[in-house]
Amino acid sequence: MSADGDVTTTPVALQDAMRQVATEIDRHFDLLLEVPDDARGRLYDAMRHAAIGGGKRLRPLLVCAACDLFHVDRQAALRVALAIECIHVYSLVHDDMPCMDDDDLRRGKPTVHKAYDEATAVLAGDSLQSLAFEILADEATHPDPFVRIELVAELARAAGPAGMAGGQMMDLAAETQAFDLPTVTRLQQLKTGALIGFCLEAGAIMGHVPPEGRGRLRGYARDIGLAFQIADDLLDVEGDAAAIGKAVGKDAAAGKATFVSLLGRERAHQQADMLVGQAIAHLSSYGAEADLLRVIAGYIIERDR
Amino acid sequence: MSADGDVTTTPVALQDAMRQVATEIDRHFDLLLEVPDDARGRLYDAMRHAAIGGGKRLRPLLVCAACDLFHVDRQAALRVALAIECIHVYSLVHDDMPCMDDDDLRRGKPTVHKAYDEATAVLAGDSLQSLAFEILADEATHPDPFVRIELVAELARAAGPAGMAGGQMMDLAAETQAFDLPTVTRLQQLKTGALIGFCLEAGAIMGHVPPEGRGRLRGYARDIGLAFQIADDLLDVEGDAAAIGKAVGKDAAAGKATFVSLLGRERAHQQADMLVGQAIAHLSSYGAEADLLRVIAGYIIERDR
Repeated sequence: MSADGDVTTTPVALQDAMRQVATEIDRHFDLLLEVPDDARGRLYDAMRHAAIGGGKRLRPLLVCAACDLFHVDRQAALRVALAIECIHVYSLVHDDMPCMDDDDLRRGKPTVHKAYDEATAVLAGDSLQSLAFEILADEATHPDPFVRIELVAELARAAGPAGMAGGQMMDLAAETQAFDLPTVTRLQQLKTGALIGFCLEAGAIMGHVPPEGRGRLRGYARDIGLAFQIADDLLDVEGDAAAIGKAVGKDAAAGKATFVSLLGRERAHQQADMLVGQAIAHLSSYGAEADLLRVIAGYIIERDR
Repeated sequence: MSADGDVTTTPVALQDAMRQVATEIDRHFDLLLEVPDDARGRLYDAMRHAAIGGGKRLRPLLVCAACDLFHVDRQAALRVALAIECIHVYSLVHDDMPCMDDDDLRRGKPTVHKAYDEATAVLAGDSLQSLAFEILADEATHPDPFVRIELVAELARAAGPAGMAGGQMMDLAAETQAFDLPTVTRLQQLKTGALIGFCLEAGAIMGHVPPEGRGRLRGYARDIGLAFQIADDLLDVEGDAAAIGKAVGKDAAAGKATFVSLLGRERAHQQADMLVGQAIAHLSSYGAEADLLRVIAGYIIERDR
């Protein structure tokens, strides 16, 4: 399962945890996105289409696993998980648009601009971003306003131009510029790493771990973030569109530098394995409460979609 | 200048206040949006293009004027003003895109998707929304986390699907559905009213006014919000594109129901006048500290752009 001999959580336990989180996230979205009986209905329908019933819910799972380390209240963990998933889903909706990646298929369903239209896709993405911050700011998420405001600050930074959105801009530039390995690494640390980093940071914030005590969790997040992206690049060349639920082979077709194009498939696999081992090593001071994080690290490079 | 005989602030004072706020907002954006020396540079450039050096800065002015009522620290007022302007500017960037209003000109300059490209416009808008919440969550905005988190909650609600974004969705529907006056009113209360409401609410939050004491300010905001939109609809039929800095006559061309198409020009003018008087009447319990809000109410229907 992983490079760490102490892992006791089984793949079955991981599957259970994933299913449970996915069910809870769907249930929360269903309650939150009640469709109003006026012309805004189409917007809510589009948000539901994008948010409900799909995806691995990896980020929510990471939030919950990080919260397990510090015995954080499950409802608080799920509310934060919901907020991060709002940001992730909004980024997918906008990223799929014709002016960006131009994808017709996402999570095995038509993308939002295909099922609705481009204007609705813009507004649905925008609305999901607002919703993320509305969720975090709500007392129902956490009784301590210091915790809530730190979560808002961290998520805004992770999602914004110095984080995810900045990484997406670099990703667009990668279509016309020949990026080297350090630049592709930086791009991916922003594009996917910043949000994954927030998932772990959120556990630490709710666990009242001071910033100077979050180094190992940040190391774990950085390593699995890169491993995740390498695995994604490998799926893009080795994967099957039907199983993945989205188009494959797009990076190569666009002539874009990726970990795979720069390292070759064999070294990319090795690098991903190394990063997973390193991520798990960051957790060595934790006991069984970190087992879910350990199996997630292994899962990240073994997933087939 | 206005329906209230007690107004002592002169148009010159209004111009001074507007100029001062506009200068401060530009200065803050300039500092905040330092362009990084990597492939994210284009994103920051586009954000600067959209955010710096244009617009009436009406919402920042309203925040500052509302803060004047409660002697709120000027720097705190300006930081919140900056956040609300981030949301406003992001909505303009996305709204101008070909799949939405398809405008080439904004504030007398090419729109972001024209000056850059559509993908950059999507990301610049998305980034400006994140930035708004990052600004509000920052300690530099207000030392009290209760105040900051309430500002985040209110702005997220005002910007999201139950507020501005929901209003924009209704606005798109207005192109194909024949809305009546109550529906157009509701549409505008969401599309522009929610953010204007936040400006006044922000002053009350920072002034530690409890929610139950904000009724008159909400009344003022509701009335000037509608007056503003009626004036906007009138400018769309009576205005000059060069002076306004954006295209005119678009609503009529799209066959969209507006206050002017439903009321006619004369009754629309009367309605706007009535609303301004009513807005000023909501301020009757305040003294000279509300003079700026009073002249803003009058300005809203007298502006020519």
